Amino acid sequence: MDFKVLDGGVCAAKGFRANGVYCGIKKPAADNGNQSLPHKNDLGMIASDEPCATVCVYTTNKVKGAPITVTKRNLEKTGGISKAVIVNSKNANTCNADGVEKAEKMCELAAAQLGIKPQEVIVASTGVIGQVLPIEPIAAGVEPLAAGLSYTGNEEAATAIMTTDTVKKEYAVEFEMDGAVCRIGGMAKGSGMIHPNMATTLNFITTDAAVSRDMLQKALDDIVKITYNCLSIDGDTSTNDMVCLMANGLAKNKPIAQDSDDFEIFKAALYEVMANLTKMLAKDGEGATKLIECECRGCRDTQTAITVAKSVIGSTLFKCAVFGEDANWGRILCAVGYAPAEFDINRVDVDILSEYGEIAVCRNGAGVDFSEEKAAEILKSDEIGVIINLNCGSCSAKAWGCDMTYDYVKINGDYRT
Amino acid sequence: MDFKVLDGGVCAAKGFRANGVYCGIKKPAADNGNQSLPHKNDLGMIASDEPCATVCVYTTNKVKGAPITVTKRNLEKTGGISKAVIVNSKNANTCNADGVEKAEKMCELAAAQLGIKPQEVIVASTGVIGQVLPIEPIAAGVEPLAAGLSYTGNEEAATAIMTTDTVKKEYAVEFEMDGAVCRIGGMAKGSGMIHPNMATTLNFITTDAAVSRDMLQKALDDIVKITYNCLSIDGDTSTNDMVCLMANGLAKNKPIAQDSDDFEIFKAALYEVMANLTKMLAKDGEGATKLIECECRGCRDTQTAITVAKSVIGSTLFKCAVFGEDANWGRILCAVGYAPAEFDINRVDVDILSEYGEIAVCRNGAGVDFSEEKAAEILKSDEIGVIINLNCGSCSAKAWGCDMTYDYVKINGDYRT
Repeated sequence: MDFKVLDGGVCAAKGFRANGVYCGIKKPAADNGNQSLPHKNDLGMIASDEPCATVCVYTTNKVKGAPITVTKRNLEKTGGISKAVIVNSKNANTCNADGVEKAEKMCELAAAQLGIKPQEVIVASTGVIGQVLPIEPIAAGVEPLAAGLSYTGNEEAATAIMTTDTVKKEYAVEFEMDGAVCRIGGMAKGSGMIHPNMATTLNFITTDAAVSRDMLQKALDDIVKITYNCLSIDGDTSTNDMVCLMANGLAKNKPIAQDSDDFEIFKAALYEVMANLTKMLAKDGEGATKLIECECRGCRDTQTAITVAKSVIGSTLFKCAVFGEDANWGRILCAVGYAPAEFDINRVDVDILSEYGEIAVCRNGAGVDFSEEKAAEILKSDEIGVIINLNCGSCSAKAWGCDMTYDYVKINGDYRT
Repeated sequence: MDFKVLDGGVCAAKGFRANGVYCGIKKPAADNGNQSLPHKNDLGMIASDEPCATVCVYTTNKVKGAPITVTKRNLEKTGGISKAVIVNSKNANTCNADGVEKAEKMCELAAAQLGIKPQEVIVASTGVIGQVLPIEPIAAGVEPLAAGLSYTGNEEAATAIMTTDTVKKEYAVEFEMDGAVCRIGGMAKGSGMIHPNMATTLNFITTDAAVSRDMLQKALDDIVKITYNCLSIDGDTSTNDMVCLMANGLAKNKPIAQDSDDFEIFKAALYEVMANLTKMLAKDGEGATKLIECECRGCRDTQTAITVAKSVIGSTLFKCAVFGEDANWGRILCAVGYAPAEFDINRVDVDILSEYGEIAVCRNGAGVDFSEEKAAEILKSDEIGVIINLNCGSCSAKAWGCDMTYDYVKINGDYRT
């Protein structure tokens, strides 16, 4: 299915305003030290003109950020309806004795500005774990934040959730259902402590499509499984991960309340947004110089394909080889071999590709002769593809990651300062 | 239990000779390029004066090196008796169409020199995956290799199995059983593609204790679980991992054939050797500057303790923080939180320690105030300890790893050349 790609991120869909400000949780830009972050906002907001059916998926980590606890409670109180989001970066508000209290306070502050109830606010935080969240800058910043909300404020919001991200991540598409023009747009933040098996990172997705909460949750669960959960930067599952999908119905399509052709269209559009945000997250992984996309084909079932593709993406050794532009395919096959899945290793084929070409490096589980020169040429690209074929079925899946670099070590050897 | 620590590695026990030579699989020392390896041997041998009861544990990777296949077959043929080991480094002889043939040839070459049967030889290889093993250098090198076998040749053998290792790893102890003086000694190689869930790396352990094969296997399985399998350098499970334990009975102790006090003594001695080799492997992890030892206490059962300790050791983010000497304990708690085990995260305590002191950083799942200066002082050590207390039981376990450094990336960005 082809979709019209739009600018506008979380403001692409009708009736969503957004904004971001610098309130003082991050160090001032001039004092950023060696990180020289290309952004300074640290407090963001999204507000919908109409109440939104809202669904989330959360981290599976036992340590859960206080904002996750509060957001869950709020959605329980309202029966899954929200009207706004408040989010800060640089401090995760996690593992703090007063975390829940502070997260609730953030909801109250936002609600007071917007004239809504605190439980109608989604709250999220990202950044350092275990440092007390200063509420004063947020209390002072929330007024200009709300006052500046606009239908074109998506970029300000998208930069407010960045931590070690080097670029903002936004994507939006337009599509038609039963004659109604609908839009889905989202923003996401990376770029470390990212690993499958949960909803990775902070992601906010807005749509003006009318979709019931049950079907919204079903769509989100299905698509998370094959997008964010197929992403790994460093194997660490964050404590604050959340994907939040808000639908305000302003597109006036015939509401989706069950499986239907429209629901399939909606899911395809949601996949388009989430898969593209996933790739942006992978490409901007901490210290990354190259995006790696691994597709596993010829599998008995989709879960096997996901498991194998993720195993390759997660191999630190292979990630280093990609950084070094070394066609060390043995490390790919090694990672295929330790993936917890059932298949015959002696039927496995491996190809490496990029915009500069494609080569076969392994057939039936054994190496084949290939030109090291051609391999070196292919690996010069900043987007490297790996195709694994298990040759035992017809299912496939993709996973995304990035190379492991000196800068990853540098960023994470000195993150708190 | 206290053991007398000996030099002598695999030659410490009575009746074991060893040797190592440079045969030409590695590049000549002068041509080592930027790796400047401090060793040049690439072919090693161990030979026992008497037949040995022999047990192994192997990698769980579906991709298994050809030497693993051949060693398994040999031990089946002889009913678990071996007389010698031949091992090469720099080439793993894995994923090659002629791998089994070459591994069998290595056994034949060794057997011919020693006047034994090919199936009485244990064969192992370590190095690059998927490059054809050149047999000519081995055929030429095996004669001087066997001719030079000696009761003090342990160091030559220990250096012959090194790849990116910067130091050889040997350990041996002496102990008494029923008045008989017994010895166990071993050698091991690291130092990348190392991850729990199998017998990590190549390890050869020799003993002159008389122990039946069944009890030998039982001892090895038990101790591997709490030593090598609690080690992670980079999360990658190698294709060629093997731990081989050979017992020739020359100590003339009353043979161990069932659970007994002697068996407990033997296991304690085996633990001593294997735990110390494990620490050496961790400390010499690729690019490592610091050893990390994580002990998890207060657990309902040992498996929980192992799972949690390994999760912390495996966190790339925490490993970077240790390299940067940053007391970023939130990353420890994050890794505790995503460990697949059942416990109450709100009861978890975390301490960080070294020879320079100890500090509490987390109590009941929340941060506590601590002196950053003292933390910085503690983290200057090259051996960092982490103690996790789940406060829900009496079992404990340790896991070992190392920091993640620029050099790890450098070594693995350019390993094949």
